[in-house]
Amino acid sequence: MEYYSSYINKLIEQLSHLPGIGTKSAQRLAFHIMNMPKDQVAQLTASITGAREKVRYCRQCFTLTDTELCPICSNPRRDASTIMVVENTRDLAAYEKTGKYEGVYHVLHGAISPMLGIGPDDIRLKELMQRLQQDVKEVIIATNSSLEGETTAMYISRLVKPTGIRVSRIASGVPVGGDLEYIDEVTLLRALEGRVEL
Amino acid sequence: MEYYSSYINKLIEQLSHLPGIGTKSAQRLAFHIMNMPKDQVAQLTASITGAREKVRYCRQCFTLTDTELCPICSNPRRDASTIMVVENTRDLAAYEKTGKYEGVYHVLHGAISPMLGIGPDDIRLKELMQRLQQDVKEVIIATNSSLEGETTAMYISRLVKPTGIRVSRIASGVPVGGDLEYIDEVTLLRALEGRVEL
Repeated sequence: MEYYSSYINKLIEQLSHLPGIGTKSAQRLAFHIMNMPKDQVAQLTASITGAREKVRYCRQCFTLTDTELCPICSNPRRDASTIMVVENTRDLAAYEKTGKYEGVYHVLHGAISPMLGIGPDDIRLKELMQRLQQDVKEVIIATNSSLEGETTAMYISRLVKPTGIRVSRIASGVPVGGDLEYIDEVTLLRALEGRVEL
Repeated sequence: MEYYSSYINKLIEQLSHLPGIGTKSAQRLAFHIMNMPKDQVAQLTASITGAREKVRYCRQCFTLTDTELCPICSNPRRDASTIMVVENTRDLAAYEKTGKYEGVYHVLHGAISPMLGIGPDDIRLKELMQRLQQDVKEVIIATNSSLEGETTAMYISRLVKPTGIRVSRIASGVPVGGDLEYIDEVTLLRALEGRVEL
Protein backbone atom coordinates (compact mmCIF):
# COMPACT_ATOMS: atom_id res chain seq x y z
CA MET A 1 0.00 0.00 0.00
CA GLU A 2 2.51 2.60 -1.13
CA TYR A 3 -0.39 4.77 -2.33
CA TYR A 4 -0.61 6.47 1.05
CA SER A 5 1.95 8.40 3.00
CA SER A 6 4.46 6.16 4.78
CA TYR A 7 3.18 7.71 8.02
CA ILE A 8 -0.31 6.40 7.28
CA ASN A 9 1.10 2.99 6.34
CA LYS A 10 2.95 2.82 9.63
CA LEU A 11 -0.17 3.81 11.55
CA ILE A 12 -2.29 1.22 9.70
CA GLU A 13 0.29 -1.44 10.49
CA GLN A 14 0.40 -0.50 14.19
CA LEU A 15 -3.39 -0.46 14.46
CA SER A 16 -3.75 -3.82 12.72
CA HIS A 17 -1.70 -5.44 15.50
CA LEU A 18 -4.52 -4.72 17.95
CA PRO A 19 -6.94 -7.57 18.69
CA GLY A 20 -10.02 -7.71 16.48
CA ILE A 21 -8.67 -5.07 14.11
CA GLY A 22 -7.98 -6.34 10.60
CA THR A 23 -6.35 -4.40 7.76
CA LYS A 24 -9.66 -2.91 6.61
CA SER A 25 -10.63 -1.66 10.08
CA ALA A 26 -7.10 -0.36 10.63
CA GLN A 27 -7.39 1.62 7.38
CA ARG A 28 -10.72 3.07 8.38
CA LEU A 29 -9.41 3.98 11.83
CA ALA A 30 -6.27 5.56 10.38
CA PHE A 31 -8.25 7.77 8.00
CA HIS A 32 -10.59 8.71 10.80
CA ILE A 33 -7.60 9.75 12.91
CA MET A 34 -6.25 11.80 9.98
CA ASN A 35 -9.47 13.78 10.03
CA MET A 36 -9.72 14.22 13.81
CA PRO A 37 -8.89 17.66 15.29
CA LYS A 38 -5.32 17.65 16.60
CA ASP A 39 -6.36 18.19 20.20
CA GLN A 40 -8.61 15.12 20.10
CA VAL A 41 -5.71 13.08 18.74
CA ALA A 42 -3.58 14.39 21.60
CA GLN A 43 -6.28 13.33 24.09
CA LEU A 44 -6.39 9.84 22.59
CA THR A 45 -2.64 9.30 22.76
CA ALA A 46 -2.46 10.83 26.25
CA SER A 47 -5.12 8.42 27.51
CA ILE A 48 -3.23 5.46 26.03
CA THR A 49 0.06 6.53 27.57
CA GLY A 50 -1.56 7.57 30.86
CA ALA A 51 -3.36 4.27 31.31
CA ARG A 52 -0.29 2.21 30.42
CA GLU A 53 1.93 4.23 32.76
CA LYS A 54 -0.34 4.51 35.77
CA VAL A 55 -2.20 1.23 35.82
CA ARG A 56 -0.75 -1.73 37.69
CA TYR A 57 -1.88 -4.90 39.42
CA CYS A 58 -3.53 -4.77 42.85
CA ARG A 59 -1.00 -6.15 45.36
CA GLN A 60 -3.63 -8.52 46.72
CA CYS A 61 -6.13 -9.57 44.04
CA PHE A 62 -4.16 -8.64 40.90
CA THR A 63 -6.96 -6.75 39.23
CA LEU A 64 -5.90 -3.70 37.21
CA THR A 65 -5.91 -0.55 39.32
CA ASP A 66 -3.97 2.66 39.80
CA THR A 67 -3.52 2.30 43.56
CA GLU A 68 -1.39 -0.24 45.42
CA LEU A 69 -4.52 -1.92 46.78
CA CYS A 70 -7.61 -1.82 44.53
CA PRO A 71 -10.84 -0.10 45.70
CA ILE A 72 -12.49 -3.48 46.33
CA CYS A 73 -9.65 -4.97 48.42
CA SER A 74 -9.33 -1.76 50.42
CA ASN A 75 -13.07 -1.47 51.10
CA PRO A 76 -13.65 -2.58 54.73
CA ARG A 77 -17.30 -3.41 53.98
CA ARG A 78 -16.32 -6.18 51.58
CA ASP A 79 -16.15 -9.67 53.04
CA ALA A 80 -12.45 -10.55 52.75
CA SER A 81 -13.09 -14.16 53.75
CA THR A 82 -14.89 -14.96 50.49
CA ILE A 83 -12.72 -14.93 47.36
CA MET A 84 -14.17 -15.21 43.88
CA VAL A 85 -11.57 -16.42 41.38
CA VAL A 86 -11.98 -14.97 37.87
CA GLU A 87 -9.91 -15.20 34.71
CA ASN A 88 -9.59 -11.46 34.07
CA THR A 89 -10.59 -7.98 35.15
CA ARG A 90 -13.50 -7.86 32.70
CA ASP A 91 -15.06 -10.88 34.43
CA LEU A 92 -14.62 -9.10 37.76
CA ALA A 93 -16.41 -6.07 36.31
CA ALA A 94 -19.24 -8.29 35.06
CA TYR A 95 -19.88 -9.57 38.61
CA GLU A 96 -19.47 -6.09 40.10
CA LYS A 97 -22.21 -4.85 37.79
CA THR A 98 -24.66 -7.22 39.49
CA GLY A 99 -24.05 -5.22 42.69
CA LYS A 100 -24.89 -8.33 44.74
CA TYR A 101 -21.51 -9.87 45.44
CA GLU A 102 -20.02 -8.72 48.72
CA GLY A 103 -16.80 -10.71 48.82
CA VAL A 104 -13.45 -9.97 47.22
CA TYR A 105 -11.80 -11.31 44.05
CA HIS A 106 -8.70 -12.97 42.76
CA VAL A 107 -7.80 -12.30 39.13
CA LEU A 108 -5.80 -15.13 37.52
CA HIS A 109 -5.01 -13.30 34.27
CA GLY A 110 -5.62 -16.35 32.16
CA ALA A 111 -6.63 -19.97 32.39
CA ILE A 112 -4.71 -23.23 32.17
CA SER A 113 -4.49 -24.29 28.53
CA PRO A 114 -2.26 -27.21 27.52
CA MET A 115 -3.13 -26.35 23.89
CA LEU A 116 -1.63 -22.86 24.21
CA GLY A 117 1.11 -24.03 26.56
CA ILE A 118 -0.29 -22.06 29.51
CA GLY A 119 0.40 -23.96 32.73
CA PRO A 120 -0.51 -23.32 36.38
CA ASP A 121 2.66 -21.26 36.85
CA ASP A 122 1.67 -18.85 34.08
CA ILE A 123 -1.41 -17.56 35.90
CA ARG A 124 -1.71 -16.03 39.39
CA LEU A 125 -2.36 -19.33 41.16
CA LYS A 126 0.59 -19.30 43.56
CA GLU A 127 -0.60 -15.87 44.73
CA LEU A 128 -4.09 -17.29 45.34
CA MET A 129 -2.68 -20.10 47.48
CA GLN A 130 -0.71 -17.57 49.51
CA ARG A 131 -3.89 -15.61 50.20
CA LEU A 132 -5.53 -18.75 51.57
CA GLN A 133 -3.14 -18.67 54.52
CA GLN A 134 -5.14 -15.76 55.85
CA ASP A 135 -8.64 -16.09 57.22
CA VAL A 136 -10.56 -17.37 54.16
CA LYS A 137 -13.84 -19.29 54.44
CA GLU A 138 -14.79 -19.87 50.81
CA VAL A 139 -13.26 -19.84 47.35
CA ILE A 140 -15.84 -19.39 44.58
CA ILE A 141 -14.44 -20.43 41.22
CA ALA A 142 -15.91 -18.25 38.48
CA THR A 143 -13.65 -19.12 35.57
CA ASN A 144 -15.37 -19.39 32.19
CA SER A 145 -17.25 -22.54 31.34
CA SER A 146 -14.88 -23.20 28.43
CA LEU A 147 -12.51 -26.17 28.33
CA GLU A 148 -9.71 -23.99 29.76
CA GLY A 149 -11.96 -22.48 32.42
CA GLU A 150 -13.17 -25.93 33.54
CA THR A 151 -9.62 -27.31 33.60
CA THR A 152 -8.53 -24.37 35.72
CA ALA A 153 -11.53 -24.79 38.04
CA MET A 154 -10.75 -28.47 38.54
CA TYR A 155 -7.11 -27.73 39.19
CA ILE A 156 -7.87 -25.04 41.76
CA SER A 157 -10.46 -27.15 43.57
CA ARG A 158 -7.92 -29.96 43.91
CA LEU A 159 -5.38 -27.50 45.36
CA VAL A 160 -7.80 -25.84 47.77
CA LYS A 161 -9.72 -28.86 49.11
CA PRO A 162 -6.85 -30.21 51.28
CA THR A 163 -6.75 -26.86 53.12
CA GLY A 164 -10.28 -27.47 54.43
CA ILE A 165 -11.54 -24.21 52.92
CA ARG A 166 -14.91 -24.49 51.16
CA VAL A 167 -14.60 -24.49 47.35
CA SER A 168 -17.57 -23.82 45.06
CA ARG A 169 -18.16 -23.34 41.34
CA ILE A 170 -20.69 -20.92 39.82
CA ALA A 171 -23.63 -22.79 38.24
CA SER A 172 -23.80 -23.68 34.56
CA GLY A 173 -27.16 -23.73 32.83
CA VAL A 174 -29.57 -22.00 30.52
CA PRO A 175 -29.10 -18.21 30.59
CA VAL A 176 -32.06 -16.26 31.96
CA GLY A 177 -34.29 -15.27 29.05
CA GLY A 178 -32.43 -17.76 26.86
CA ASP A 179 -34.46 -19.62 24.25
CA LEU A 180 -33.84 -23.37 24.62
CA GLU A 181 -33.96 -23.83 20.90
CA TYR A 182 -30.79 -21.80 20.43
CA ILE A 183 -28.76 -23.23 23.28
CA ASP A 184 -26.05 -25.81 22.68
CA GLU A 185 -26.47 -29.39 23.85
CA VAL A 186 -23.69 -29.31 26.43
CA THR A 187 -25.37 -26.38 28.18
CA LEU A 188 -28.75 -28.13 28.00
CA LEU A 189 -27.31 -31.26 29.61
CA ARG A 190 -25.58 -29.17 32.28
CA ALA A 191 -28.86 -27.43 33.03
CA LEU A 192 -30.54 -30.85 33.37
CA GLU A 193 -27.84 -32.24 35.66
CA GLY A 194 -27.90 -29.13 37.79
CA ARG A 195 -31.69 -29.07 38.15
CA VAL A 196 -33.07 -27.95 41.50
CA GLU A 197 -36.25 -29.16 43.21
CA LEU A 198 -39.19 -26.76 43.34
CA MET B 1 -17.76 1.15 35.28
CA GLU B 2 -16.00 2.36 38.37
CA TYR B 3 -14.57 -1.16 38.85
CA TYR B 4 -11.52 -0.26 36.82
CA SER B 5 -8.95 2.44 37.29
CA SER B 6 -10.14 5.87 36.15
CA TYR B 7 -7.25 5.79 33.68
CA ILE B 8 -8.68 2.68 32.07
CA ASN B 9 -12.16 4.20 32.04
CA LYS B 10 -10.81 7.26 30.27
CA LEU B 11 -9.00 5.10 27.72
CA ILE B 12 -12.11 2.99 27.09
CA GLU B 13 -14.14 6.15 26.57
CA GLN B 14 -11.59 7.61 24.13
CA LEU B 15 -11.36 4.36 22.16
CA SER B 16 -15.13 4.00 21.95
CA HIS B 17 -15.31 7.32 20.06
CA LEU B 18 -13.49 5.70 17.14
CA PRO B 19 -15.63 4.45 14.24
CA GLY B 20 -16.74 0.83 14.44
CA ILE B 21 -15.52 0.49 18.05
CA GLY B 22 -18.30 -0.11 20.58
CA THR B 23 -17.91 -0.27 24.36
CA LYS B 24 -17.10 -3.99 24.33
CA SER B 25 -14.38 -3.64 21.69
CA ALA B 26 -13.01 -0.57 23.45
CA GLN B 27 -12.77 -2.59 26.68
CA ARG B 28 -10.97 -5.43 24.95
CA LEU B 29 -8.58 -2.99 23.26
CA ALA B 30 -7.90 -1.14 26.52
CA PHE B 31 -7.04 -4.35 28.37
CA HIS B 32 -4.86 -5.43 25.49
CA ILE B 33 -3.00 -2.12 25.66
CA MET B 34 -2.57 -2.57 29.43
CA ASN B 35 -0.74 -5.81 28.73
CA MET B 36 1.41 -4.52 25.86
CA PRO B 37 5.11 -3.86 26.54
CA LYS B 38 5.66 -0.15 27.18
CA ASP B 39 7.86 0.33 24.10
CA GLN B 40 5.12 -1.09 21.87
CA VAL B 41 2.65 1.33 23.42
CA ALA B 42 5.10 4.15 22.72
CA GLN B 43 5.36 3.01 19.08
CA LEU B 44 1.59 3.00 18.74
CA THR B 45 1.12 6.51 20.14
CA ALA B 46 4.09 7.81 18.13
CA SER B 47 2.60 6.48 14.91
CA ILE B 48 -0.74 8.14 15.70
CA THR B 49 0.87 11.48 16.49
CA GLY B 50 3.36 11.22 13.60
CA ALA B 51 0.69 10.48 11.02
CA ARG B 52 -1.60 13.23 12.28
CA GLU B 53 1.22 15.80 12.34
CA LYS B 54 2.92 14.98 9.06
CA VAL B 55 0.09 14.02 6.75
CA ARG B 56 -1.65 16.67 4.67
CA TYR B 57 -3.60 16.99 1.44
CA CYS B 58 -1.82 16.91 -1.92
CA ARG B 59 -1.89 20.45 -3.33
CA GLN B 60 -3.30 19.17 -6.62
CA CYS B 61 -5.44 16.05 -6.12
CA PHE B 62 -6.15 16.34 -2.34
CA THR B 63 -5.21 12.78 -1.53
CA LEU B 64 -3.52 12.29 1.85
CA THR B 65 0.26 12.51 1.56
CA ASP B 66 3.28 13.80 3.44
CA THR B 67 4.71 15.81 0.55
CA GLU B 68 3.34 18.95 -1.03
CA LEU B 69 2.56 17.06 -4.24
CA CYS B 70 1.65 13.37 -3.83
CA PRO B 71 3.76 10.64 -5.48
CA ILE B 72 1.12 10.10 -8.19
CA CYS B 73 0.74 13.77 -9.14
CA SER B 74 4.52 14.24 -9.18
CA ASN B 75 5.17 11.13 -11.29
CA PRO B 76 5.92 12.31 -14.86
CA ARG B 77 4.90 8.92 -16.27
CA ARG B 78 1.30 9.36 -15.16
CA ASP B 79 -1.10 10.83 -17.73
CA ALA B 80 -2.06 14.18 -16.20
CA SER B 81 -4.75 14.76 -18.84
CA THR B 82 -6.97 11.98 -17.46
CA ILE B 83 -8.46 12.63 -14.01
CA MET B 84 -10.34 9.97 -12.07
CA VAL B 85 -12.64 11.52 -9.46
CA VAL B 86 -13.01 9.42 -6.27
CA GLU B 87 -14.74 10.02 -2.95
CA ASN B 88 -11.76 9.29 -0.73
CA THR B 89 -8.16 8.13 -0.51
CA ARG B 90 -9.18 4.50 0.11
CA ASP B 91 -10.99 4.45 -3.24
CA LEU B 92 -7.85 5.85 -4.87
CA ALA B 93 -5.85 3.05 -3.25
CA ALA B 94 -8.35 0.46 -4.52
CA TYR B 95 -7.78 1.59 -8.13
CA GLU B 96 -4.02 1.87 -7.63
CA LYS B 97 -3.97 -1.78 -6.55
CA THR B 98 -5.22 -2.78 -9.99
CA GLY B 99 -1.97 -1.33 -11.34
CA LYS B 100 -3.70 -0.60 -14.67
CA TYR B 101 -4.79 3.00 -14.33
CA GLU B 102 -2.23 5.43 -15.72
CA GLY B 103 -4.00 8.74 -15.19
CA VAL B 104 -4.15 10.91 -12.08
CA TYR B 105 -6.86 11.36 -9.44
CA HIS B 106 -8.99 13.95 -7.75
CA VAL B 107 -10.14 13.13 -4.21
CA LEU B 108 -13.43 14.81 -3.26
CA HIS B 109 -13.36 13.83 0.43
CA GLY B 110 -17.05 13.05 0.48
CA ALA B 111 -20.11 12.98 -1.73
CA ILE B 112 -23.09 15.25 -2.09
CA SER B 113 -25.77 14.18 0.40
CA PRO B 114 -28.86 16.35 0.94
CA MET B 115 -29.81 13.93 3.76
CA LEU B 116 -26.62 14.69 5.69
CA GLY B 117 -26.58 18.33 4.61
CA ILE B 118 -23.43 17.88 2.51
CA GLY B 119 -23.58 20.17 -0.50
CA PRO B 120 -21.27 20.72 -3.50
CA ASP B 121 -19.31 23.33 -1.53
CA ASP B 122 -18.47 20.83 1.21
CA ILE B 123 -16.42 18.57 -1.05
CA ARG B 124 -13.40 19.41 -3.25
CA LEU B 125 -15.45 20.21 -6.34
CA LYS B 126 -14.35 23.81 -6.88
CA GLU B 127 -10.77 22.55 -6.85
CA LEU B 128 -11.66 19.98 -9.52
CA MET B 129 -13.15 22.65 -11.77
CA GLN B 130 -9.99 24.73 -11.37
CA ARG B 131 -7.87 21.78 -12.50
CA LEU B 132 -9.95 21.52 -15.67
CA GLN B 133 -8.53 24.84 -16.87
CA GLN B 134 -5.31 23.00 -17.56
CA ASP B 135 -4.90 20.50 -20.37
CA VAL B 136 -7.43 17.83 -19.39
CA LYS B 137 -8.92 15.40 -21.91
CA GLU B 138 -11.14 13.19 -19.77
CA VAL B 139 -12.78 13.15 -16.36
CA ILE B 140 -13.65 9.62 -15.18
CA ILE B 141 -16.19 9.71 -12.37
CA ALA B 142 -15.53 6.83 -9.95
CA THR B 143 -17.72 7.85 -7.02
CA ASN B 144 -19.54 4.98 -5.27
CA SER B 145 -22.68 3.59 -6.83
CA SER B 146 -24.68 4.67 -3.77
CA LEU B 147 -27.39 7.35 -3.89
CA GLU B 148 -24.83 9.97 -2.79
CA GLY B 149 -22.22 8.74 -5.23
CA GLU B 150 -24.69 8.82 -8.13
CA THR B 151 -25.94 12.27 -7.18
CA THR B 152 -22.37 13.52 -7.08
CA ALA B 153 -21.57 11.88 -10.43
CA MET B 154 -24.59 13.50 -12.04
CA TYR B 155 -23.70 16.89 -10.57
CA ILE B 156 -20.10 16.70 -11.76
CA SER B 157 -21.05 15.56 -15.27
CA ARG B 158 -23.41 18.51 -15.59
CA LEU B 159 -20.61 20.88 -14.53
CA VAL B 160 -17.97 19.38 -16.78
CA LYS B 161 -19.94 18.82 -19.99
CA PRO B 162 -20.15 22.54 -20.98
CA THR B 163 -16.33 22.71 -20.93
CA GLY B 164 -16.18 20.21 -23.81
CA ILE B 165 -14.02 17.80 -21.79
CA ARG B 166 -15.03 14.15 -22.08
CA VAL B 167 -16.84 12.87 -18.97
CA SER B 168 -17.29 9.16 -18.24
CA ARG B 169 -18.61 7.02 -15.41
CA ILE B 170 -17.18 3.66 -14.33
CA ALA B 171 -19.52 0.79 -15.23
CA SER B 172 -22.07 -0.66 -12.81
CA GLY B 173 -22.88 -4.35 -13.00
CA VAL B 174 -22.47 -7.77 -11.54
CA PRO B 175 -19.09 -8.09 -9.75
CA VAL B 176 -16.70 -10.57 -11.31
CA GLY B 177 -17.17 -13.93 -9.60
CA GLY B 178 -20.45 -12.67 -8.12
CA ASP B 179 -23.29 -15.16 -7.83
CA LEU B 180 -26.41 -13.68 -9.50
CA GLU B 181 -28.61 -15.21 -6.83
CA TYR B 182 -27.10 -12.99 -4.13
CA ILE B 183 -27.02 -9.74 -6.05
CA ASP B 184 -29.61 -7.03 -5.49
CA GLU B 185 -32.19 -6.21 -8.15
CA VAL B 186 -30.92 -2.72 -8.88
CA THR B 187 -27.48 -4.09 -9.73
CA LEU B 188 -29.04 -6.83 -11.87
CA LEU B 189 -31.05 -4.27 -13.82
CA ARG B 190 -27.96 -2.08 -14.23
CA ALA B 191 -26.03 -5.04 -15.56
CA LEU B 192 -28.84 -5.72 -18.04
CA GLU B 193 -29.02 -2.12 -19.23
CA GLY B 194 -25.26 -1.93 -19.57
CA ARG B 195 -24.98 -5.18 -21.53
CA VAL B 196 -22.39 -5.30 -24.28
CA GLU B 197 -22.62 -7.19 -27.53
CA LEU B 198 -20.42 -10.26 -27.95
